[in-house]
Amino acid sequence: MSMLGLKLPTDPRWANIAEKNVEEILTDHAYCEQKAASTAISLIIGYPDYPDLVEEMAALAREEMSHFEMVHKKIRERNLSLGKERKDAYVHRIMEFFPKTGNRVERLVNRLLIAALIEARSCERFKVLSENIEDQDLAEFYRKLMVSEANHYTMFLKFAREIGGREQVDPKWQELLEYEATVMSTLGTKEHIHG
Amino acid sequence: MSMLGLKLPTDPRWANIAEKNVEEILTDHAYCEQKAASTAISLIIGYPDYPDLVEEMAALAREEMSHFEMVHKKIRERNLSLGKERKDAYVHRIMEFFPKTGNRVERLVNRLLIAALIEARSCERFKVLSENIEDQDLAEFYRKLMVSEANHYTMFLKFAREIGGREQVDPKWQELLEYEATVMSTLGTKEHIHG
Repeated sequence: MSMLGLKLPTDPRWANIAEKNVEEILTDHAYCEQKAASTAISLIIGYPDYPDLVEEMAALAREEMSHFEMVHKKIRERNLSLGKERKDAYVHRIMEFFPKTGNRVERLVNRLLIAALIEARSCERFKVLSENIEDQDLAEFYRKLMVSEANHYTMFLKFAREIGGREQVDPKWQELLEYEATVMSTLGTKEHIHG
Repeated sequence: MSMLGLKLPTDPRWANIAEKNVEEILTDHAYCEQKAASTAISLIIGYPDYPDLVEEMAALAREEMSHFEMVHKKIRERNLSLGKERKDAYVHRIMEFFPKTGNRVERLVNRLLIAALIEARSCERFKVLSENIEDQDLAEFYRKLMVSEANHYTMFLKFAREIGGREQVDPKWQELLEYEATVMSTLGTKEHIHG
């Protein structure tokens, strides 16, 4: 697997922090899937006039909820509890990158790029988990989910380029990746998917 | 099919109003499915400590999004457009019935009863559509979806009774049904699923 454009790899020691609190990482992960579903739904509501996007976002919301179910099943199997929803400090900081101004299409492209980035980083985090944790059942679980995240990354980037034009979008994407690396350099210390 | 407890049947002439504007009814219907998915997700976020409920709500959100996809496909097949999201005046009025006060469990039971009611009325509306519209493709479509709505109604009512206790919940449910009939008596004139 390539690094999906990401400019800073996660320190593998993060996986050991994560593994020390499986309930926390699974809870955080469950809500990542839920938030991804909610984001897909919110893109449908905001952009119903993009039928191909609407179709993909509906399928995506469905897929993310099926992942939520899989994570929830892991939680129940292990007699753990789904905790309360957490704020995702990483996502919050990433969303600050683009100004809230710009026309409707520019804002859509920005949202698609942010979604692509979060999928890319989630994919990388799942890879780090799958390669570094002791628990083989969870390692296998994250290996499988990693592939979905990579597909979502590709899909979001494709839509951003189609809608915004490759020449406009690619430099923006590079800037976003640079910014993300600076955000990432301050993280890697918490038992959260993007922590 | 029984009337699912509903105290006022829809005037079948509503189906003819609905059929005159297929784009409008399909758009409204698509967002009903989306809102049902969003409600299920919001119950997960609010009540993660009810694992059976969480499991059913995740599956429900997935199913509602698959219905959204089916409606969206009908829209595209007919070269129609998904319009903007509509406010659902019916749902808005139904939600006013219960006071916002009460403890966390009471508020959950109220939300489950409201969800059961909306599923019941949607089921009845789909039945009226399927039996009264000329378009046989859509009639068949609504006949199939009707069954899902009936199952969801049963599921929500079951959770409300389990969580709130049958003796407390059943009188509340009857009051809600009475109130709904008075709301319904003012409707039936718009090309919306609950219009």
